[in-house]
Amino acid sequence: MKETRVIRIRESILAENAAKAEDLRERLSAHGVTLLNLMSSPGSGKTSLILRTIEALRDRYSIAVVEADIDSTVDADRIAAAGIPAVQIETGGFCHIEAAMMEAAVSGMDLDAIDLLVLENVGNLICTAQHDTGAHLSVAILSFPEGDDKPLKYPIMFRAADAVIVNKTDYGDLADFNLEAARRRVEVLNPGVPLIPLSCRTGAGVDAWIAWLEPRIRSSFPGASERRY
Amino acid sequence: MKETRVIRIRESILAENAAKAEDLRERLSAHGVTLLNLMSSPGSGKTSLILRTIEALRDRYSIAVVEADIDSTVDADRIAAAGIPAVQIETGGFCHIEAAMMEAAVSGMDLDAIDLLVLENVGNLICTAQHDTGAHLSVAILSFPEGDDKPLKYPIMFRAADAVIVNKTDYGDLADFNLEAARRRVEVLNPGVPLIPLSCRTGAGVDAWIAWLEPRIRSSFPGASERRY
Repeated sequence: MKETRVIRIRESILAENAAKAEDLRERLSAHGVTLLNLMSSPGSGKTSLILRTIEALRDRYSIAVVEADIDSTVDADRIAAAGIPAVQIETGGFCHIEAAMMEAAVSGMDLDAIDLLVLENVGNLICTAQHDTGAHLSVAILSFPEGDDKPLKYPIMFRAADAVIVNKTDYGDLADFNLEAARRRVEVLNPGVPLIPLSCRTGAGVDAWIAWLEPRIRSSFPGASERRY
Repeated sequence: MKETRVIRIRESILAENAAKAEDLRERLSAHGVTLLNLMSSPGSGKTSLILRTIEALRDRYSIAVVEADIDSTVDADRIAAAGIPAVQIETGGFCHIEAAMMEAAVSGMDLDAIDLLVLENVGNLICTAQHDTGAHLSVAILSFPEGDDKPLKYPIMFRAADAVIVNKTDYGDLADFNLEAARRRVEVLNPGVPLIPLSCRTGAGVDAWIAWLEPRIRSSFPGASERRY
């Protein structure tokens, strides 16, 4: 009895969120904004990847960032220091971002002035992947020190991702991370998904990430409004 | 309206869980079992710390392990390979362990034959800290590559912990982790909580962890049943 009650409420909340996310995605598309949702464990390098992305694309695109954390403005401060507008969502105890929170975050923004909006989701390899934020692109980051077995343990995340970044390759052999094993494990869950190894610290591999991302920024291609989302 | 509805349900579920956790804790205490709940981000070294703990204590205590993962039996297999009984909970999409899951996990165990029962919780720095598992001891692991700012971003975890392990000290300067900064941040959240730096890879510092843990194992001290829990 109790199980059924809880599950039904969860389903209705998820359905409500999915509808809100779809509305938000359409609204952002209409303004030519591409929303990129970055997800990973705590400390995998989401903020560092955002800083590298800003560095590579800021001359050609207008970028804004939404930072989500349980508490603190540490990350938003790092983004703001790079001269990019950043909104901080403090979630309290909340473990992921939902569409309604993103709606609130974009409510004060001039959407026509933004090409790429990056959401740094809460550091969580589970709950974030289960909730549609309204993003056009969802990207998962895994890092060398976390280990190559993570796709086996957190399959929902690796199935939900449009691309998988493997960060901190500069840790090299010290991390004992088998890139080919990780690639095989991700491929089984999400056939054809690109896996992009890079190091935000050294910059190695960041060009491959930008080469994947840039053609997916709506304002970079004609007829953007014809796309599926 | 909707917010209120959701919050009430959550509160009633949490209250139900807290009552179940208290019952389980008392039952385990009555059998002389100490339940240790290990929590961290994915890849911080929970399984490695369990293996080091087994190595240090297996001659003096009878140890069993409960492994919790979204999917896979990777960790339980590592524990079983060390010759220690391991039960795997596959949570499906569930992001943390609650008391009812632990009840199910211990239901087939001969509790009188166990001194130390270790729960390796799901890799999650948020949700796990918000749910009482019935454990006597809750320990958070942070690792050098994750960064020393994590207590600022995930305060609930560091407030809930009875001890904080800082693992992967062997990454050294490469990880750019300021141990004193981490210590200050944890101290603000949880005054007096011990912070124990160690490396599961090299074994350095593991003795300090064992020195903290061993006197807290119920069967190691007389009059254990008089304790608070």
